[in-house]
Amino acid sequence: MAAWGQRLAGVRGVLLDISGVLFDGAEGSGVPIAGSVEAVARLKRSRLKVRFCTNESQKSLGDLVRLLQQLGFDISEGEVTAPAPATCLILKERGLRPYLLIHDGIRSEFDQIDTSNPNCVVIADAGESFSYQNMNKAFQVLMELENPVLISLGKGRYYKETSGLMLDVGAYVKALEYACGIEAEVVGKPSPEYFKSALQEMGLEAHQAVMIGDDIVGDVGGAQQCGMRALQVRTGKFRLRVPDGEAGES
Amino acid sequence: MAAWGQRLAGVRGVLLDISGVLFDGAEGSGVPIAGSVEAVARLKRSRLKVRFCTNESQKSLGDLVRLLQQLGFDISEGEVTAPAPATCLILKERGLRPYLLIHDGIRSEFDQIDTSNPNCVVIADAGESFSYQNMNKAFQVLMELENPVLISLGKGRYYKETSGLMLDVGAYVKALEYACGIEAEVVGKPSPEYFKSALQEMGLEAHQAVMIGDDIVGDVGGAQQCGMRALQVRTGKFRLRVPDGEAGES
Repeated sequence: MAAWGQRLAGVRGVLLDISGVLFDGAEGSGVPIAGSVEAVARLKRSRLKVRFCTNESQKSLGDLVRLLQQLGFDISEGEVTAPAPATCLILKERGLRPYLLIHDGIRSEFDQIDTSNPNCVVIADAGESFSYQNMNKAFQVLMELENPVLISLGKGRYYKETSGLMLDVGAYVKALEYACGIEAEVVGKPSPEYFKSALQEMGLEAHQAVMIGDDIVGDVGGAQQCGMRALQVRTGKFRLRVPDGEAGES
Repeated sequence: MAAWGQRLAGVRGVLLDISGVLFDGAEGSGVPIAGSVEAVARLKRSRLKVRFCTNESQKSLGDLVRLLQQLGFDISEGEVTAPAPATCLILKERGLRPYLLIHDGIRSEFDQIDTSNPNCVVIADAGESFSYQNMNKAFQVLMELENPVLISLGKGRYYKETSGLMLDVGAYVKALEYACGIEAEVVGKPSPEYFKSALQEMGLEAHQAVMIGDDIVGDVGGAQQCGMRALQVRTGKFRLRVPDGEAGES
């Protein structure tokens, strides 16, 4: 306990990943991870600030929060940092009109975005919508552009659902990067902008916060690169055997 | 002409890529590239040996050759080096039972292969069969293996059909490589074994042969790395603007 006290000295806030830390998703639903509902409640009763940091890109923020509330979590939309709203800001600032390779569940987040005559591609965890036809359309849009812009909501390798491991958006980002000879811009973990934005919302400096996640790269690595401390849980996609190269996040 | 004579001095055989050099494919059919039928006929009337070298993996060898014959080409199955038969040999030699992420058009090539209880994945240009469900199945098979083996028929970025550029198998190989943290074994161009096997069939040494293709990496680069000369045509997927990094082949 002394060691833990030392390691967490000066921490004033906790950033919590959602999928694989609070719950394991399932088709349109999910199952809380044992102890997580109570852990969130205890954190909220403590003096620590709490923020939820997700790369969720299959559900709108509203749907995600409603699901978590139904599972018993004390959470509201304003406490969540998610990549879709940040992406919309970027699109508007840069006058980008995306071809949206996304899940229908998150399409409402882009209601205010002009998607006519696309001059970029936005890719998120599209699940079943990662058809050959949709991937090829995204590829063709990018190949027609003088300066191809590919914006990715996260770059996770895979995530865990109750039914097993599932391919995440990062795999499909790599496919388009390779086919087009380009590099995607990542919005969401592990991009530094994502963590800085979450810290800003909490009113904390990096050294005052600890990130808790199941992904060694997206959560732990990303947070550490921003000067934060980080803890990896052994739930969700956690596996003892780490594949070669970098791991992914969701 | 003197320059050409010099460049091709000592050449006794020609290796011809098929898609993008002889014809542009279309759904179940194709259109010969202007002059290509006559060019093949002239080569065959010359003293040069001719071999067709393809990474075609949507059609069986029989179907591909029948299509080319219908388009007017003088070609027979015995004159073609293709990746599927080479893959079957590898599977048998190493006792591998593949999950086949392939196009239905080429499934008959694997009729004699045991696919029960898969201990590897074979990926080819599956086209519409690159569904999320099939990709996820391949991913899950690989993640369950102690030593994941992913065998890829080529690693092209894209190819050209009459309707436009189409994503090729290489993009999906990259997706699985990233998700699983592994590297695929490539059967087909640009692997040296492929070119060596074609040269052996022709009874020629590398310095006696020239490869003609539309892909700067798969055709030209691969052949040159084997000590052959190579020519890039300006048909098929040829584009003046080369994307960053390596280009692809099909």
